[in-house]
Amino acid sequence: MQVKKAVITAAAKAQRALPMQTLVDEHGTERSVLSLIVQEAVRAGIEDICVVVYPGDADPYSKLVQDSGARVRFIEQHEPRGYGHAVWCAREFTGGDAFLHLVGDHIYVGENGRSSARALVDTAEAEACAVSAVQVTRENLLPYFGAVGGQQIAGHPGLYRVETVIEKPTPTEAEQELVVPGLRSGYYLCFHGMHVLTPAVMDLLGTRDSRNVTLSSALAELAQREQYLALVQSGRRFDAGVKYGLFYAQLALALCGADRERVLAQLLEVVAAGSAQG
Amino acid sequence: MQVKKAVITAAAKAQRALPMQTLVDEHGTERSVLSLIVQEAVRAGIEDICVVVYPGDADPYSKLVQDSGARVRFIEQHEPRGYGHAVWCAREFTGGDAFLHLVGDHIYVGENGRSSARALVDTAEAEACAVSAVQVTRENLLPYFGAVGGQQIAGHPGLYRVETVIEKPTPTEAEQELVVPGLRSGYYLCFHGMHVLTPAVMDLLGTRDSRNVTLSSALAELAQREQYLALVQSGRRFDAGVKYGLFYAQLALALCGADRERVLAQLLEVVAAGSAQG
Repeated sequence: MQVKKAVITAAAKAQRALPMQTLVDEHGTERSVLSLIVQEAVRAGIEDICVVVYPGDADPYSKLVQDSGARVRFIEQHEPRGYGHAVWCAREFTGGDAFLHLVGDHIYVGENGRSSARALVDTAEAEACAVSAVQVTRENLLPYFGAVGGQQIAGHPGLYRVETVIEKPTPTEAEQELVVPGLRSGYYLCFHGMHVLTPAVMDLLGTRDSRNVTLSSALAELAQREQYLALVQSGRRFDAGVKYGLFYAQLALALCGADRERVLAQLLEVVAAGSAQG
Repeated sequence: MQVKKAVITAAAKAQRALPMQTLVDEHGTERSVLSLIVQEAVRAGIEDICVVVYPGDADPYSKLVQDSGARVRFIEQHEPRGYGHAVWCAREFTGGDAFLHLVGDHIYVGENGRSSARALVDTAEAEACAVSAVQVTRENLLPYFGAVGGQQIAGHPGLYRVETVIEKPTPTEAEQELVVPGLRSGYYLCFHGMHVLTPAVMDLLGTRDSRNVTLSSALAELAQREQYLALVQSGRRFDAGVKYGLFYAQLALALCGADRERVLAQLLEVVAAGSAQG
């Protein structure tokens, strides 16, 4: 199995300005959020990208990803039928191929410069199956994420065979169905916003006929049909769509790069000046 | 003299994405950079605003300033003839009236919640003349700003009668022409990016027939013709157009508001996580 295509979902009406926000990346280059996400895919060896957008946004967004090193096309989601449906809008683009899927509002900061997407694609290609990136997450954060239950694969630390997927589980559901042997009590495997998906996922999404199609429900079914794995990521992700999300992502990126000392020093000057005034 | 109009310049081709960048303001509301600047003008009692833009930007920018509390119109600068020319593009809008002028790439963080623009407009109305906001600035920063020389007005701390204006002076020029009695040695009065200007400034800008019309040269001539003052501002300004400028502006805004504790705590967590990985 080879993964050369990626689908990025950026079709939420309330977040139409987000892909155009700019940050300075770890190399000191100013980039839009969309360009950062495209760059993460390119680092993982992706050559063709399809961005699913709100109607009318293809034009402004396309200016953000010129010279990205991949072919980027745009598809509009014409009905607001949820996240799973947005992924499904790219079905003609993905055709019979496995593909990397990234959400358009997450910014990834790899550990020691390693790309999270690269690690995910490498695992999917080696195991020839769908793999979701997950993060070991405290129980109190379960209301924000999809979570998986399953068994660790012998000899592969951080790699799990997924048996169950529940979107935003309650603590009781999590305790009954998502406890993962080997994790500390009260910790679960939650989605990291990054997956390698197989054509079977598109087929499953296509059978859903509801107003709000979730990806998690298709992945729950996938786990019953095919081998489907979860890979624990050590890198960090920032949800740029929440309040101050861009700010914290910028801080994390700056601390990884050549500007680290300068940014830390200036940051303390701004804090000191603000405290002197307060 | 009453100041009810404002001109905001946001026509630089290289900074077309800047007005659309979003920050969380000191009240915890997400706002675009343009909306923050418009808000600063509205706080100063401005009712009519003209934004000078690069051709084609009126439409995307107008969505950013709906419900701003002022009437906002847009005028295109059709030739890239510099900053002074951009101001002059609004001459029909300002007509025979004095107006507040703000640059489109500066974010102001007032001291203890006081508006810098409000203080400037109050002074201009009381003195019935043009007034530029200035900041006491170290010599090493002279290459970045316009600077003024003049005399303090007796009984008005922080208020100066301007005699000389030089755009980005050399240290020698500054020492010969811009020394201000009462300031510490090596410190000068540099522009803060905020002025109340009189119709005479529009007339002076109109007489300039060059490819790069500067506001400073018109203000230098104004100082010979009319009473023209400079008011020292204690609030801080952030140039959002430079690298990490938006990041530091966001930090300063967050530290002024209700989210202060939460943002400081989270900021340290991001720094700690980044250091643990490094």
